[in-house]
Amino acid sequence: MRALVCENGAARLRRDYPIAPRAAGEARIRVVQAGVCATDLQLIAGYKGFSGVLGHEFVGVVEEADNARWIGQRVVGGINRACGQCAPCRRGDITHCAQRDVLGILGRDGAFADSCLLPEANLHAVPDGVSDDQAVFAEPLAAALAITDQHPIAPGERVTVIGDGRLGLLIVQVLALTGCDLTLVGRHAEKLALGEQWGARAGLASEPPVARSQDVVVACSGEASGLALAQSLVRPRGRIILKTTSAAQQGAAELDLNALVVDEVTLCGSRCGPMDAAVRLLAQGVIDVAPLISARFSLDQGEAALTAAARKGVLKVVLQMTC
Amino acid sequence: MRALVCENGAARLRRDYPIAPRAAGEARIRVVQAGVCATDLQLIAGYKGFSGVLGHEFVGVVEEADNARWIGQRVVGGINRACGQCAPCRRGDITHCAQRDVLGILGRDGAFADSCLLPEANLHAVPDGVSDDQAVFAEPLAAALAITDQHPIAPGERVTVIGDGRLGLLIVQVLALTGCDLTLVGRHAEKLALGEQWGARAGLASEPPVARSQDVVVACSGEASGLALAQSLVRPRGRIILKTTSAAQQGAAELDLNALVVDEVTLCGSRCGPMDAAVRLLAQGVIDVAPLISARFSLDQGEAALTAAARKGVLKVVLQMTC
Repeated sequence: MRALVCENGAARLRRDYPIAPRAAGEARIRVVQAGVCATDLQLIAGYKGFSGVLGHEFVGVVEEADNARWIGQRVVGGINRACGQCAPCRRGDITHCAQRDVLGILGRDGAFADSCLLPEANLHAVPDGVSDDQAVFAEPLAAALAITDQHPIAPGERVTVIGDGRLGLLIVQVLALTGCDLTLVGRHAEKLALGEQWGARAGLASEPPVARSQDVVVACSGEASGLALAQSLVRPRGRIILKTTSAAQQGAAELDLNALVVDEVTLCGSRCGPMDAAVRLLAQGVIDVAPLISARFSLDQGEAALTAAARKGVLKVVLQMTC
Repeated sequence: MRALVCENGAARLRRDYPIAPRAAGEARIRVVQAGVCATDLQLIAGYKGFSGVLGHEFVGVVEEADNARWIGQRVVGGINRACGQCAPCRRGDITHCAQRDVLGILGRDGAFADSCLLPEANLHAVPDGVSDDQAVFAEPLAAALAITDQHPIAPGERVTVIGDGRLGLLIVQVLALTGCDLTLVGRHAEKLALGEQWGARAGLASEPPVARSQDVVVACSGEASGLALAQSLVRPRGRIILKTTSAAQQGAAELDLNALVVDEVTLCGSRCGPMDAAVRLLAQGVIDVAPLISARFSLDQGEAALTAAARKGVLKVVLQMTC
């Protein structure tokens, strides 16, 4: 089959990639379309030392499964395969399974291919009213929902999102639904305008909110300066939610630990979130994805798609497998 | 009056230090005894650029006050003077008052002197059953209680305290009262033995708990390596409580931010805590302070007291004003 493979610091399209055998309990999914994430670009840059097929944001149709009810079903999928036996799994923290593999990120080939494999337990049926374009955002939308899933935000709180990229604009939409007093800080007028359309006050990076005024700051710019800005904006006893990883391990040197202690600030790492909630919000039609799609490429043009996704200002690049 | 004054990177005893006028609402307290804290040593090393009388752990007797009920009362005191008007004060976060001064730390002369001043609102009466030796621990005990005040610990949780110094051994006693499964990691056999006596499993720094096994890790060793060890011990979705500041701003480079995000760990800065709760626990007799006093000095020997407090292995050094 065709697959976009990460090897030795580069990604290249292979047309002869072997089709893996399906293990018991797994479903084989014909990928319909997939989204390029900043993490894909980081993996190519060396983050986690991954080699294999990239891609963890997808919508597809189940072709093979043990349970016949899945066959032919349009699905999205949770990306972490859990063992069910380790301490995190027994606590219910299945996305932290000590034995996990992660679709297109860790030990499991991903979705930038004609097909991919996931445990049936990871699948979420996509309702008819949710388009493929909407469904391909389920995984990053779930990552945005990880914030409110783990660190509830009250309607009366002041919240700033730093970073007007792909993830930041989904986070803005999710946080606006809490009713909180929301500001989006970024560098791109047209993206800030999207944030305003979705309920966030726009703040150019040169004109951020008043120092020490925000109850919660979400840092998702992927830049080292984002964490220092977050720390300057958050109020004493406030929370900083850190959403982005990078191959360069940026930001630690930017963090003032003395100030973190004196101001009793809480810094929360946040990763994958609830896929079922993401599908529900998409079905409710309260998340607007159309303005987030910057470009579409066929899988045959996969290498060009990754190049496009790395360009400044580009939002979501979608790979379409069948065109 | 006599006062131990921090100036230009050194502390020296002055016998002619001026007695400051008492402002409305303030009490003048004759200091009975005071405790030396790691923060005092950091202030001398340049932390916060403080100059003035050191000392923020004390017990004393009120000599002058607007409200006559305080006169002659034995007291301990909250160290942050709050304006009552700013945003943190209006939220009830009075220890984070934007206009605050802090006894012996920020803009207010401290308690290593014959007398000091604090607002009456900061005073806590010391019950008769609490000795001066116990009462002088009220402030650091409150700092230990800040942990459970802000980040409750459940009885079923596994908790490790890194650092068997003055503060670590108070934290062990406070956390043991939750019933949690507690380990103290340190370098000093005799201090670890105290931790065991108070209900903590002893773990030499060379033999820490199993990696990624602890629900909560409290980092209070004041060493850069403590934060990296904390991150290695905490479980995914666990909490690290950071208790110590330093002039050298240690630790930030030790923090792996990618791992913080991937493991969804929460890093919580923690500082001052509830003085009233500290006094209650001392009155209940459930906090053992006698083994924590390493040495006593008169205020006249104040410079020698600070030298002693800086020695490895020394726990609390107490300054006695009247001997």
